[in-house]
Amino acid sequence: MNDITEELQRLAGKFVVFDGPDGCGKTTQMKLLIAKLEEAGVKIRRLREPGGTPIGEQVRELLLSTKNEGMNVRCEMLLYMASRAQLVQQEIRPALAAGECVVADRFASSTLAYQGGGGGMKVKDILEVAKIAVDGTWPDLTVLFDLDTDVAMGRLNWLNALPMFADMAVKDRIEQRARDYFERVRENYRWQAKQWPQRYRIVDAGQGIPQVEKQVMKVLRDFFAK
Amino acid sequence: MNDITEELQRLAGKFVVFDGPDGCGKTTQMKLLIAKLEEAGVKIRRLREPGGTPIGEQVRELLLSTKNEGMNVRCEMLLYMASRAQLVQQEIRPALAAGECVVADRFASSTLAYQGGGGGMKVKDILEVAKIAVDGTWPDLTVLFDLDTDVAMGRLNWLNALPMFADMAVKDRIEQRARDYFERVRENYRWQAKQWPQRYRIVDAGQGIPQVEKQVMKVLRDFFAK
Repeated sequence: MNDITEELQRLAGKFVVFDGPDGCGKTTQMKLLIAKLEEAGVKIRRLREPGGTPIGEQVRELLLSTKNEGMNVRCEMLLYMASRAQLVQQEIRPALAAGECVVADRFASSTLAYQGGGGGMKVKDILEVAKIAVDGTWPDLTVLFDLDTDVAMGRLNWLNALPMFADMAVKDRIEQRARDYFERVRENYRWQAKQWPQRYRIVDAGQGIPQVEKQVMKVLRDFFAK
Repeated sequence: MNDITEELQRLAGKFVVFDGPDGCGKTTQMKLLIAKLEEAGVKIRRLREPGGTPIGEQVRELLLSTKNEGMNVRCEMLLYMASRAQLVQQEIRPALAAGECVVADRFASSTLAYQGGGGGMKVKDILEVAKIAVDGTWPDLTVLFDLDTDVAMGRLNWLNALPMFADMAVKDRIEQRARDYFERVRENYRWQAKQWPQRYRIVDAGQGIPQVEKQVMKVLRDFFAK
């Protein structure tokens, strides 16, 4: 058994969240990490938010449907939390209890950034609801993929210009929001990392995929070191 | 203009909730009151919960669908609150601002009774989320239709035994819950009325329709007296 295998095995029974703006590359990095964890023999529970359960997927549909344009930010926040409450009880807790590593694409950190930073809700109010929704089950580590807003938006536009994404021309209403919204989202993410340094780590998502992967691996090795 | 007309006109711009267990007769009484208010020239906004907005109706479907049996109580509570947040902003506030009388079938008092009293969630937690969801827009008056649990359940079973309700044989999952659950719901409703005597009134829903109507009218006249 080599060093890296041993280090990755420390993630068994841990709850890790990958978060950041759309276009930051977190989903690609999750796949790379999961492949390595599987190689190291760590059982994985991969989850996405909103969704991750049959009930959560129905909430996801409601949240992302363009026909629900008139949804206000409080309703939106509470729907994300509802999906999360179900995910925690139905997936996250049983997986952690079975010694699996839970890797989630977004969690409460996204609601703070989007409905708080972006949507203007009080962070204190969102945190209050989050406490009740997750009922004590917080991530051990949140990896924030920090990215310049213009670069993030450029990546999304690049995707949409490809012929294979032609039918995504009508982006979902979340992605349609303007640049200043995304800038406030980024600022909130960075604020969270400063606020809770004991359970957040930032990686520079502006680099290439292999360089970001190196940063992620270093963060995980350092964070879960004996 | 007679006395009763003048008294009913005091309900313009007020927010009144009718609440109580299924089978308590609140919907019948709402209809009777609304007819009188219309006669008195008061503009009405009649609402139901969960639902009352296109988004809320989608949440309602999700909540009442028998395929969502595995929904946990926190998720349920948060979905009710999400529907409510949308209702407050989209319907209740504009109606009150326009001087209409808002009459709602259920509100936060139902979530306290069902997910708190019935489902066992901490009342403090539900109240915390309710404060954030309604953002200051509380009912002026909540009329509680108090009814013996066995009588309430008997009324529901009687409905289901009628041929016209044959296709309701599979009751929605809320109604399938057992007697002790409904007893805890009732106790919580009564607790609320004691807790907030300045904005709750109890009527005895065990009497006949005309007698209950008399009680309701007396409550409204006394409560909104000059």
